Amino acid sequence: MPAPSIETAEEVMFYDTDCGGVVHNIAYLRFIEKARTKLAAVMGMELREMAATQLFPVVVRTEIDYRRPALLGDHLIVRGALELLQRARFGMQFEIVRPADGERLVLCRQSLALVQMPEGRPQRLPEMWAAQWPDATAPAKS
Amino acid sequence: MPAPSIETAEEVMFYDTDCGGVVHNIAYLRFIEKARTKLAAVMGMELREMAATQLFPVVVRTEIDYRRPALLGDHLIVRGALELLQRARFGMQFEIVRPADGERLVLCRQSLALVQMPEGRPQRLPEMWAAQWPDATAPAKS
Amino acid sequence: MPAPSIETAEEVMFYDTDCGGVVHNIAYLRFIEKARTKLAAVMGMELREMAATQLFPVVVRTEIDYRRPALLGDHLIVRGALELLQRARFGMQFEIVRPADGERLVLCRQSLALVQMPEGRPQRLPEMWAAQWPDATAPAKS
Amino acid sequence: MPAPSIETAEEVMFYDTDCGGVVHNIAYLRFIEKARTKLAAVMGMELREMAATQLFPVVVRTEIDYRRPALLGDHLIVRGALELLQRARFGMQFEIVRPADGERLVLCRQSLALVQMPEGRPQRLPEMWAAQWPDATAPAKS
Repeated sequence: MPAPSIETAEEVMFYDTDCGGVVHNIAYLRFIEKARTKLAAVMGMELREMAATQLFPVVVRTEIDYRRPALLGDHLIVRGALELLQRARFGMQFEIVRPADGERLVLCRQSLALVQMPEGRPQRLPEMWAAQWPDATAPAKS
Repeated sequence: MPAPSIETAEEVMFYDTDCGGVVHNIAYLRFIEKARTKLAAVMGMELREMAATQLFPVVVRTEIDYRRPALLGDHLIVRGALELLQRARFGMQFEIVRPADGERLVLCRQSLALVQMPEGRPQRLPEMWAAQWPDATAPAKS
Repeated sequence: MPAPSIETAEEVMFYDTDCGGVVHNIAYLRFIEKARTKLAAVMGMELREMAATQLFPVVVRTEIDYRRPALLGDHLIVRGALELLQRARFGMQFEIVRPADGERLVLCRQSLALVQMPEGRPQRLPEMWAAQWPDATAPAKS
Repeated sequence: MPAPSIETAEEVMFYDTDCGGVVHNIAYLRFIEKARTKLAAVMGMELREMAATQLFPVVVRTEIDYRRPALLGDHLIVRGALELLQRARFGMQFEIVRPADGERLVLCRQSLALVQMPEGRPQRLPEMWAAQWPDATAPAKS
């Protein structure tokens, strides 16, 4: 199977913007979290199940580039894909685009671990993942 | 015409919850803002237009009752309706329900003014509104 | 003893504002939560202890009036006080003022319950509270 | 002069945490923004002045590593310093530590531009900066 990917839609609300007149840098990370959550669900990690098992995908690193600002009322698309599977970490990449003008506004990479709470112990990734998505076991391309 | 009303859907994300294990009280107000924004659009106030005209609907009062908590992964419906039109203020009411068990989790009323920024001057409401939505000119029922 | 009260200081950050050029209505509730947390600590409810006992003060109702907007960089003072003690609920009141011009920007009342998580069971308030703060057992004045 | 640096203090509030029981990854970026704002003020960029001139330091890239989680009620210290001055960009680095156990919880680097709003035009950095803080004109060390 190709590596899992998803797409989510956002509309920029007042609370996403700041007095510079554009979307605040932190707000994009909420957009990305929503996409990441959908992507995790596609990979078999459902939110409700997490609440029960207390096994959570935890962000261990974020890299985010802000290229163009989004504005109040903009309709945005967030695209996310599994990019890399390692022994105990997996990488996702995201981009936020504005269909109205085709601009890629934001690029983001996140590295995640599976952590058993409340102890906070990182787990090995399920072996099934590498078998299912061999594309993601090769090193990521910049 | 009956007073305008809308319905929006939310799925509870990690960033909506707190370490009490339930949705944080402030997060519901983001859900309600999204519904309010859709309702404002139905009433003719579009986000993108606001950014241009700098005429904004501004919340002047919120009353919110938290009756039952929502949990990670819950699918929620927010229902909003125009409730009251006065000379310079209008009232909206909202409820957040969880279809899975039919619970009404949150009830909220907000009073808004139309404010011309950056001066911050409140405007009279458009006269057309009262003509269009006579139901909303009667006093609100508790 | 007089009813417990506290004062906290805030400086308005970018993330507190929106593209209307002023502080977003939701951001004030974060300021108030910080004050409420200090007030709870004065009343004997320490954050770290809550994390251990899972007994949390939970907001069951908020009323908030937005009178004047705060701006980027404003220095604000939040004043909070215990206002009312009932059998299973207690009320707090808050005001947010801007010392630079003496304006009272926001008034807020919150009603809280003590809830044992994860069951979500409301507890009776400690009897000691009424004995300690008799002022707060009389009905609140508007 | 040595490159400017600052230190800010935070106490973890409920709204900073999520139902995993720890501070949410996005919340640390609010802590860092507060530190960045103080650091910008030390460098001569005052919030109130920005609101007037509409010349804003804008984050163009964030890298953040989450090493250990913070918990409700934790007292944290955020340390920030100017790290790098280029023609049109400047870099800051931050770390979040927990004095109680000496743990470094979070490491972060941000790259910023000076942007004139509402046009969104990036400006050259003031020449005075390089003269004042020669340490920051050398390439950053990992």
